Amino acid sequence: MSRYGRARKVHANTVEGRRAVLEALRAERNIDRLLIADGIEVGPQMQEIFSLAENAGILVEHLQRRELDRQSQTKKSQGVVAVLPDTRYVSVEDLIFDADSRSQAPLIAVLDGIVDPHNLGAIARTMDAAGGHGIIIPERRAAGISPGAIRASAGALMHLPVARVVNIPRTIEYLNTLGLQTLALAPASVIPAQAGTDYTTADLTIPTAIVVGSEEKGVARLTQERCTATISIPMHGQLASLNASVSAGIALYEAVRQRANA
Amino acid sequence: MSRYGRARKVHANTVEGRRAVLEALRAERNIDRLLIADGIEVGPQMQEIFSLAENAGILVEHLQRRELDRQSQTKKSQGVVAVLPDTRYVSVEDLIFDADSRSQAPLIAVLDGIVDPHNLGAIARTMDAAGGHGIIIPERRAAGISPGAIRASAGALMHLPVARVVNIPRTIEYLNTLGLQTLALAPASVIPAQAGTDYTTADLTIPTAIVVGSEEKGVARLTQERCTATISIPMHGQLASLNASVSAGIALYEAVRQRANA
Repeated sequence: MSRYGRARKVHANTVEGRRAVLEALRAERNIDRLLIADGIEVGPQMQEIFSLAENAGILVEHLQRRELDRQSQTKKSQGVVAVLPDTRYVSVEDLIFDADSRSQAPLIAVLDGIVDPHNLGAIARTMDAAGGHGIIIPERRAAGISPGAIRASAGALMHLPVARVVNIPRTIEYLNTLGLQTLALAPASVIPAQAGTDYTTADLTIPTAIVVGSEEKGVARLTQERCTATISIPMHGQLASLNASVSAGIALYEAVRQRANA
Repeated sequence: MSRYGRARKVHANTVEGRRAVLEALRAERNIDRLLIADGIEVGPQMQEIFSLAENAGILVEHLQRRELDRQSQTKKSQGVVAVLPDTRYVSVEDLIFDADSRSQAPLIAVLDGIVDPHNLGAIARTMDAAGGHGIIIPERRAAGISPGAIRASAGALMHLPVARVVNIPRTIEYLNTLGLQTLALAPASVIPAQAGTDYTTADLTIPTAIVVGSEEKGVARLTQERCTATISIPMHGQLASLNASVSAGIALYEAVRQRANA
């Protein structure tokens, strides 16, 4: 470990917060260096962070809290920041071939305009937990892999494959040609004509892409038209829709349930 | 509608943001008055807000954006704030008797120390959508009904019954005596000894309280010891747990699925 009176300005991507940094270390991510604020409380989590960093030969820089906060991109670093080489995205093919190479039916999510990094992070975290194969996001007008999203993902975005595409409707067509069913996840109650079959009646054991709409507008019409089918989560209350990451979680774990029983 | 050059300082609770205010109006909540920023875009949502407010005889105050922002508690009002009389909590008995009076098996959630208003809001939104009967939260060290939580709930916290209790472990014992099964929702993989049976194998058609732990620590030991059983969502990836509101959503919708098929 080294100590600098004044650290370099961070330009690269960062992972911030104890849990996210710990997950990044556990996943043996390529970490450039750790920044640790002076005087932070060292519990079991921090001990594991130090130990993993030492084993991996990762440089640890101690610096004053004020200096670290200046370099934090989320302002919620809890005094712990991992500085990364540039984040890289994978291709759509990589997502599918990864599943194939594990002899698993692909289970992926296509996020059609999720803008809140917390939702992207929570969906990535759920995709990891569901044992799925990755996420596809659009290049524009959508949340990308950022320190805030990585933090919300509890580190899942450090290892989960994410593909970034120019055009979501065209990507849906491509997924169809690759043999995946593409299921638009639409609220059951907003516009009844746009609602689909109950999500529990769809066969989610076959190669599947769950298409999750944006927080405000749901799945775009051009996207939904290209999907194999539309599925809906029943709404029994007064509201018209669920939180995007909650509805993605419900659909993904229905796939887990069906696949466990298959 | 009236127009004031300068509105009163808001001391009461507020509901903020177009969607949340619209849901509050649709739920025919007791709204003291609406505050609307000058010059905001009026689309279908705003038209419905104006129309519902007029029908309900709710005073609408137009004021400058800067003035409204000063009165906003969330700073994310989108130029629309509903000022409420004091929020009131219900009793635990009210939650249960409400289900009984509808001849339904109670389905409630006990939040054992959820501190993030977004998680409280998202869980309330899911509870509404699942057709469940309400939420129990502790008085201390936990998120309560606040403008931020109401906003995150898309307005669900405006009508969903919420009980606030002094002591969660004692409340679990009380729910047990009322004939509910109390199911601690624990991650499957953190501490194997604390993990429970797969949540899909539990019978969720009977009167059920799902006990959701805090974001950092999960369900407290004293709480878990008093629960009828522990259930777990299987974790197939590298991470140890799901987002609290996502895991609550997965468990609640498994109850919906089982009850639909019962």
